[in-house]
Amino acid sequence: MSKDAKQGVAETIAAELRDAIERGEYRPGDQLPGENALIKDYGAARLTVRSALGMLQAEGLTTTRRGVGVFVRSFDPIVRNGISRVSARKWKAGRSVWDDETRGRRPTVDHFEIVAEVDAPDDIAAILDSDDKVATRRRRYLLDDKPVIVATSYLPAALVAGSQILAEDTGAGGIYARLADLGHAPAHFREDIVGRMPTKAESEELAMPAGTPVFVVTRTAVTESGDPVEVNVMVMDAGAYVLRYDFDA
Amino acid sequence: MSKDAKQGVAETIAAELRDAIERGEYRPGDQLPGENALIKDYGAARLTVRSALGMLQAEGLTTTRRGVGVFVRSFDPIVRNGISRVSARKWKAGRSVWDDETRGRRPTVDHFEIVAEVDAPDDIAAILDSDDKVATRRRRYLLDDKPVIVATSYLPAALVAGSQILAEDTGAGGIYARLADLGHAPAHFREDIVGRMPTKAESEELAMPAGTPVFVVTRTAVTESGDPVEVNVMVMDAGAYVLRYDFDA
Repeated sequence: MSKDAKQGVAETIAAELRDAIERGEYRPGDQLPGENALIKDYGAARLTVRSALGMLQAEGLTTTRRGVGVFVRSFDPIVRNGISRVSARKWKAGRSVWDDETRGRRPTVDHFEIVAEVDAPDDIAAILDSDDKVATRRRRYLLDDKPVIVATSYLPAALVAGSQILAEDTGAGGIYARLADLGHAPAHFREDIVGRMPTKAESEELAMPAGTPVFVVTRTAVTESGDPVEVNVMVMDAGAYVLRYDFDA
Repeated sequence: MSKDAKQGVAETIAAELRDAIERGEYRPGDQLPGENALIKDYGAARLTVRSALGMLQAEGLTTTRRGVGVFVRSFDPIVRNGISRVSARKWKAGRSVWDDETRGRRPTVDHFEIVAEVDAPDDIAAILDSDDKVATRRRRYLLDDKPVIVATSYLPAALVAGSQILAEDTGAGGIYARLADLGHAPAHFREDIVGRMPTKAESEELAMPAGTPVFVVTRTAVTESGDPVEVNVMVMDAGAYVLRYDFDA
């Protein structure tokens, strides 16, 4: 059989399995037929069957458990409400950005790193419009034992020196409430979202499944007088999130 | 050399090229050294060099022009301001959602399809909270001759029957102004963003570069009285977009 013909067979197998998943014949968590069963059913070569299964994995429809088999992916994402989670009403009331959105499944921090003073990376310096030193708060969050997000906040070092913003526990309402205490309450936010494949380092830190992209959300907090006071760069397993924005016309 | 050692060499080559790109030694549009040059420089096997170049492509740093070479990717994305582009102020003034955001580079429609009445797909019926028939407007947009987005709007068929919403040219202010004319002006929007690898059909329709994910943005328009009047499913080449949301604290 020619290479093109094999490719055609692989696509047929992938299409039929995809349809069966979409019809609900295989549900999230279900195991798909094994390689040997597919080889027999379709009279196809092993490599052709693997190519078909690879297509479904690349589309994020399935995951492979090594030595066990191929399973329909359970997509029970975190619905992240970009706007309400950081509303002033919330942090002024001493509440956390994690409240509400995860339907009781609250990510936990497993890595944590605070640096009081360091040079700002070029892209961060450009957003902060300053070459001054920054303080950084970097933390990785797990959900159901799987890392889902690594968030790194950059704040002007001179502004936050000696404040609770550099403590692991930033207190009720978090860093936005503390910035307000310092007279620099955020008044406006910008979130810029990029989607791309993870770098090797990101892939390892987030234990990314093959064929899954990351979201990189860069949020800038700006005071009423227009000063940027924080940039938070969040690298997320895109397979774990739906990013939601609710707004008026 | 063991498989692990080869993998290590590939990662070293990828890391050095990545650093050179990040330092600006190779700039967007520049050609990277060819396979033969890298084989000579690193004393590595061709497959190892290809593996290194594959890593950079998967990260979206480079693109391959078949038979020509590997180039640093030009990332000059469309900055899509999710909130201001659909503001009532804009469509009430008869302006298009495409105004402003593309810095003079305005995507053009090359495929266009209107269906007056069809069954709603299950996920759309769930959002519209109705099993009634829908009308659909489906269009693909090009930027710089490259398809960047396929958008499909779903509207209640009975609501829009006989209106300019089913014409190719929906008039000043587009379909939101026309919905307002019909007494169903959108008052609230929700955008839900998913990031994943494209399906084969999406990959072909958007001429996706290898290793590049899509954004799927599902926007729902809701009237003041809470009725959903449109669902727009937008599949975008994630490499062509930065999704931006500006909002108050």
